[in-house]
This record gives sequence, C-alpha cells and structure tokens, in this order.
Amino acid sequence: RTRLADFLESSPAQTGIIALILVNAVIFGLETIPPVMAAIGPVLYALDHAILMVFVVEIAARLFAFGSRFFRDPWSVFDLAVIGIALLPATGSLSALRALRVMRVLRLVSAMPALRSVVDALLRAMPAMGSVAALLALVLYVGAVIATKLFGATHPEWFGDLGRSLLTLFQILTLEGWADIMRDVAEQHRFAWLFFVPFVLIATFAVLNLVVAVIVDSMQS
Amino acid sequence: RTRLADFLESSPAQTGIIALILVNAVIFGLETIPPVMAAIGPVLYALDHAILMVFVVEIAARLFAFGSRFFRDPWSVFDLAVIGIALLPATGSLSALRALRVMRVLRLVSAMPALRSVVDALLRAMPAMGSVAALLALVLYVGAVIATKLFGATHPEWFGDLGRSLLTLFQILTLEGWADIMRDVAEQHRFAWLFFVPFVLIATFAVLNLVVAVIVDSMQS
Amino acid sequence: RTRLADFLESSPAQTGIIALILVNAVIFGLETIPPVMAAIGPVLYALDHAILMVFVVEIAARLFAFGSRFFRDPWSVFDLAVIGIALLPATGSLSALRALRVMRVLRLVSAMPALRSVVDALLRAMPAMGSVAALLALVLYVGAVIATKLFGATHPEWFGDLGRSLLTLFQILTLEGWADIMRDVAEQHRFAWLFFVPFVLIATFAVLNLVVAVIVDSMQS
Amino acid sequence: RTRLADFLESSPAQTGIIALILVNAVIFGLETIPPVMAAIGPVLYALDHAILMVFVVEIAARLFAFGSRFFRDPWSVFDLAVIGIALLPATGSLSALRALRVMRVLRLVSAMPALRSVVDALLRAMPAMGSVAALLALVLYVGAVIATKLFGATHPEWFGDLGRSLLTLFQILTLEGWADIMRDVAEQHRFAWLFFVPFVLIATFAVLNLVVAVIVDSMQS
Ligand code: NA
Ligand code: NA
Repeated sequence: RTRLADFLESSPAQTGIIALILVNAVIFGLETIPPVMAAIGPVLYALDHAILMVFVVEIAARLFAFGSRFFRDPWSVFDLAVIGIALLPATGSLSALRALRVMRVLRLVSAMPALRSVVDALLRAMPAMGSVAALLALVLYVGAVIATKLFGATHPEWFGDLGRSLLTLFQILTLEGWADIMRDVAEQHRFAWLFFVPFVLIATFAVLNLVVAVIVDSMQS
Repeated sequence: RTRLADFLESSPAQTGIIALILVNAVIFGLETIPPVMAAIGPVLYALDHAILMVFVVEIAARLFAFGSRFFRDPWSVFDLAVIGIALLPATGSLSALRALRVMRVLRLVSAMPALRSVVDALLRAMPAMGSVAALLALVLYVGAVIATKLFGATHPEWFGDLGRSLLTLFQILTLEGWADIMRDVAEQHRFAWLFFVPFVLIATFAVLNLVVAVIVDSMQS
Repeated sequence: RTRLADFLESSPAQTGIIALILVNAVIFGLETIPPVMAAIGPVLYALDHAILMVFVVEIAARLFAFGSRFFRDPWSVFDLAVIGIALLPATGSLSALRALRVMRVLRLVSAMPALRSVVDALLRAMPAMGSVAALLALVLYVGAVIATKLFGATHPEWFGDLGRSLLTLFQILTLEGWADIMRDVAEQHRFAWLFFVPFVLIATFAVLNLVVAVIVDSMQS
Repeated sequence: RTRLADFLESSPAQTGIIALILVNAVIFGLETIPPVMAAIGPVLYALDHAILMVFVVEIAARLFAFGSRFFRDPWSVFDLAVIGIALLPATGSLSALRALRVMRVLRLVSAMPALRSVVDALLRAMPAMGSVAALLALVLYVGAVIATKLFGATHPEWFGDLGRSLLTLFQILTLEGWADIMRDVAEQHRFAWLFFVPFVLIATFAVLNLVVAVIVDSMQS
C-alpha cells in the first residue's frame, strides 16, 4: 500500500496524469469540430474512453492506497466527483450530463500545484465576502418579490414569477441592458425609475463592497 | 419593564424573530407563484397576517420597554418604519405600497448582528464618498440642463425635460447603451460627441474616485 | 483695495455667492420645464440676468482688488472663464453656446472648499495617470488607423474615417456594444476577431492600470 | 563602431527619431482622410517611404554598431519586428498586412523612456496574473466545449463550433450582451441559466482576482 501511495505521488506519475488530461482536453476540443469528427470520430471516442479508464484505475488505486485519508483531501473528492460524472448514464432526459464530462479537464487544477494554490486563495477570499454576499442576496430576493408584485402582470417576460425576477435583477446587477428594461417597464408604470435607480445604486454599491472586501483581504495575506 | 426588556433582548426571543422573518420571506416568495396561490393562497395570507401581528406586538413591547431609548437606536426606528409600511392603507392609487410590505424581510438585517455590522460599515463609508458624490451630482445636474437645452427639442425621448435628462445621464454613467444614444443624437447634431465623450470621461473618472475613496477608507479601518 | 479684498473673502460675501449660485442652478432647472416657462418664463430670465450681473460685478471687483494675484489663482481664472462664456454672443451657428451658460453653476466648486479640495485631489491624480494615458492614446490612435484601413471601405458607419474610428474604438474601450460591432464587421472580414479581441484585451488592461495608478497614488497621500 | 553606437544613442539622434515617428503618425492619420489623399496623396506616400528608409538605415546601423548586443535588448527586437512588417510584401491575400505598417508608430514606446517604463511595468505585472489567467483560460475552454455540445446544434451563430463558443464566452466575460444571448438560448433550452449564471459568477470572480493581483503587485513595488 505504501509503495502504491509513493508511486501515485511520484513525479513521473503526476506528470503522466497531467499529460493525459491535456490530451483529453484536446480530444474534447476536436470532438466539437464537425469535419474532424467525420474523419476520425471513432478514434477520438476510443482514445477518450481509454483515458477515462486510466483515470478510473488511478482513482481506484488512490482510494485503495490512501483509504479514509483519501476523503480528507477535498481535491481527491473533487477528482472523484469529476470522474464520477463521466460514469453516469446519460440517456434520455439526462443527455445534458454527457456535456458535463468535459469537466474532467478541470482535474488539471488539482493536478497542477500552481492552479491549485490559486483556487485555494480564491476560496479563502470567500469568507471575507460572506456577509456582503448575504446582504446582496437579501436585496436581490426582496427586490425580486417587489418587482414581481409590481410589474409581473404587465411585463411577464421580465418579472412574470419569482425565478424570472431574480434572473432579471441579476442581469440588472451586471448593468447589462438595465435601462432598456426600465424604459420598457416605464411605458406602463410611470414611476418605474423609483424602483430601478435605487436598486442599481444599492446593488452596485454592494458589489463594490464585495470587491473592496476581496482587495483588503488579499492585502492582508 | 426591565424584565420585558431583558426578555426581548434574550437569545431565544431574537432567534424566534429571525425564524419568523425567514418564514415570512418564504411566504412572500410563495405568493408570487400563481399555482401555489391557487392552492393555498388564503392560508399564506392568514400566516402572513399572523406574523405581522407578532411583529406589531414585538415593536409595541420594545417601545414600552425601552421608552425614549427606542428612538435613539437607528435600527429600532428602521424596524418601526418597515412594520409601519405594512399597516398603511394600500388601496386605489396607493396599491403599489402593498408591494413594499416585503421590505419587512429587511428586518433580517437589524436582527442578525453579522448583516448589521456590514450595513454599518457601508454607511460609515458614506462620508468618505460625500464630497466626490456631491461633485458627481453637480456634474449630472449641469450635464442634464445642457443636454435638455441642446438635444431636448430633437430627442424628447432621451432629453425632453430635466427629469428625463437626469435619468439618461445616469444611464450613461453606467456606460449602458451610451454609444447608441450618442449615435442617435448625432444624426441631428453633428458634434454630439463633444458633449458625450467628455461627459463619459468626467463621469467615469468621478466614479473611479468614489471607488478609490471606499477602498482607501476601508484600508484605514 | 485691501478692504475690498477683505470684504470679498469674508464669510458673508462667500455665503451670498454660494446662495446665488444655488438659486441660479434652480432657475436653470426650471427653464427646462415647459409649463413653468409658459407661466413665469420672463421672470426667470430677468432673475437669471440679475444674478449674472452680480457675478460680473463680483469678478470685476476681484480683478480690481487682487490685480495680478487674481491670475495666479487657477480657480479665479476658472470663474472668469465660466462667467465669460455667458457674455459671449450666442446667435446663429453659435447658439449652442447658450446651453453652456449653465456651466456657471460649476462655480459652486470654486466657492465651496470641500468640492474644491476634491477637484484638486482629482487633478493631482492626473500626473500618476499621465504615461499610462499617453500609452492608451497611442494604442487608440494606431488602432484607429489600422481599423480605418481594414474596415473603412466596408463599414463606413463605424470606421469610415479617422474620427469615426477613434470614436468607435473609444466606445469599444468602454466595452459598450463591442461584440455587436465585431460580429457586424466579421460578416465581411472573417478574421475581424484578430483585431477586436487583442484590442479589447490591451485596452482594458491599460484602463485597469490607469485605475491601479489612481488607487496607488491615493494610498500614498 | 563605438562612435557609431555613441551617435545612435546620443540625445539629438534619439530626438530626431521621435520627431520622425510623430511625423509618420500624422502622415498615417492623413492617409485615412479621403479629401486629403485626393489632394496630396502621392506626397504623403513619398514622405512615408522616405521615413521608412531612414528607419531601415537606423536599424541596420544599430545592428552593425551593437552586433549581438542588439538582440539582447527586447526593445531593439521590437523595433526590428515593427520595421520588418513594413518590408513584407502585402499583395493578394496578405493585403491586410499593409494596415499593420502603422504599428511602426508604436516605436514611440521604445523611443520614449517614460512610455517604455510604463510598458515594462505592465509586463512585470504579468507573472502576478499568470496563474489566475491560466485558470480563467481553463474555465473558458471547458465552458466553450460544454456550450458547443449543449447549444451548438440549436444556436450555431453563438456556439456552432469551438471557435465561436470561445468568442461568445469571451464576450460574456465582458458582460456585454450576455443576458440577450442567455434569453435567446433559453427559448430552446429551459435551463440555460444553469450554465450562464454560474459562468458569469465564476468568470467575473476570476477577473476580479486578476484585478486584485495587479493592484497588490503594484502596491508592493
Ligand atoms: Na453593456
Ligand atoms: Na457594460
């Protein structure tokens, strides 16, 4: 067991896995180009399958070698999840799952220490954003309920139900097309700007404070 | 009185209020989904009413228990205002007020110390932004008067009166659709860019300095 | 002379000027509202004229009282320019100058120390931005010449001549509608993205560095 | 050789080159204005050619004077590349290269120490952005493969092949028109927002961390 663990963590094994992930990424890319698929589609699928098998064997070996320690490393769990997706049946209404198989390429993050430490840093910035993000979520929720009640009947496309309103307010948060939506709503509701302008001010101010939280957090470490 | 005050500030009472706010938030959400309303609409309204009654009683108890101290805590005044909105008559032309009842959910901010301290921090950043915000408001006002005089007659939709111009310039401040408006105006006024480009430069520079003021202020504390 | 200077710099005189500027600002606003103009238009014009006369007298008094020292204070020169605009003839092709009379309201900046120090701070941030701004201007210029040569013949609306190209690239710099322009151009020039994507990357990276320059500069002081 | 090197690095020689670059920039600008071309087009081309000859001679002289040292200075290699572009044949399918001749004006950056140090600073910020940029590229690639598989068949204009998907996702990264694309896709794929909203959140969070990396890096130096 220890020797298997040593081998799995050895530099050549790690490099081999990274190489396989990169080859797999290229294969996924080639699969989206119709003329390439017409020419060598079956070869690509076969290669894809072979690489998946190697990954499955590697994960199984790590599970055997590290035992319960495997589950204490979040990156190992991430690898297991990403490989697991590829093994799910993807037929009928679940055929969208097939597209998610590409997420296997994200194993590159766990396999390369540089990327891993970036993601670790991003995740460490999360708590600093926590309360501001909660506040922003609350503003979005309250805004969505108000917008649905005020504008839902006349503008169902934007504010027809809570889900649509949340999506539209998230869009307005990115400032994308907010004025067009406001002018559209204002044709029926003269004082629509009394909702939209304060919402834009409050939401962008909250986002600004999210940004500041990340900057200040990053300065301190 | 002191015992009532102690009870109101006790941990179980506070937790109960937070739970009620969350339940109320879910009810408000459910009320925006037509099929749910068709099935259990009256139940939701009754629950909503019952929760409102609890809130009214709680506010009244706090008013009695803390006396004039109640009004010295801005968060208590905020709670009073938010509950007060729900008690206003909302018929005829004021029916929009009904939608504002959802703002009751914002009591979550005053009820949860973490959210409260975020909002306190945001408000504390305000003075640092004060002068820059005043300058930005001045630029918007002067820009709106100029734009109304120059473009109001030919493009009433954007610049027909001072209110519309202020709204349009606020939109341009968010960089949303500014070039379309400029090109539209430029069809009649060849040198429209002499207004729009400097306005965009000055306004975004002012916004940038607002952002910097918040960052610097946040660094110091 | 000294007594006149003392009076002009006295607190009541300064407060009086600020009050007059604010009244003037309100008058300018009212002048943009058609029903108000129909009712009391002549009164507003008369008041506007009277206030302008006070400003002219005040500037003349300051010129007399401070002599050449007047021109050493940039804010005095600013006041002179802003009042001067209002005295220019604004007939025929220069009627647009009439709209610029509102800039008189900007005297508020020189009259209020708080606003004055904000603008002073903004101007002090300029040198820190100097070289990056020059680089950005160079990138815009080179980009505009290239775009005019490549796309001018097929898309004259966006890139017909150097002026239009500069305006379009400034628009793209604000990320406003850039993808629509690229997709429009790409219909004739298959590899249009080879121009647009690098331009967006380089331009936004330069803008980011402008922002960073302002932040760092503001931290140090 | 040493005397030639001294002359090339002398202040008058440098100033002369800067002057020639600026004249050349103006010529390139004039060449894009049709009436100017009609009047003095041949003169402009002749001047342009003459200036190019001076640049070629200067580069040749520097190559001779500095020998292998020439290639150790990246800015010299940059000058060589930029001049080299102007000497390439630009006929037939390569006529687009003619437009790139304007890049000669970018020699201003290597000729002026202030601009040079700005670009040096920008390039020095690159490594700090390295890992985050790699992560962002990985997210874009995985996102593009998924989007092509999910939406390629129904929305070929946005996601028809890997190249288009990468371009569309880059556009969404700039938040430009993202909601229109999502709503367009959502007409066929009800749960399109499950792809777009997380992508916008992850991508903008990554960009935010790029910005923070540049700010922190710039603070430290
Ligand atoms: Na936009
Ligand atoms: Na935008």
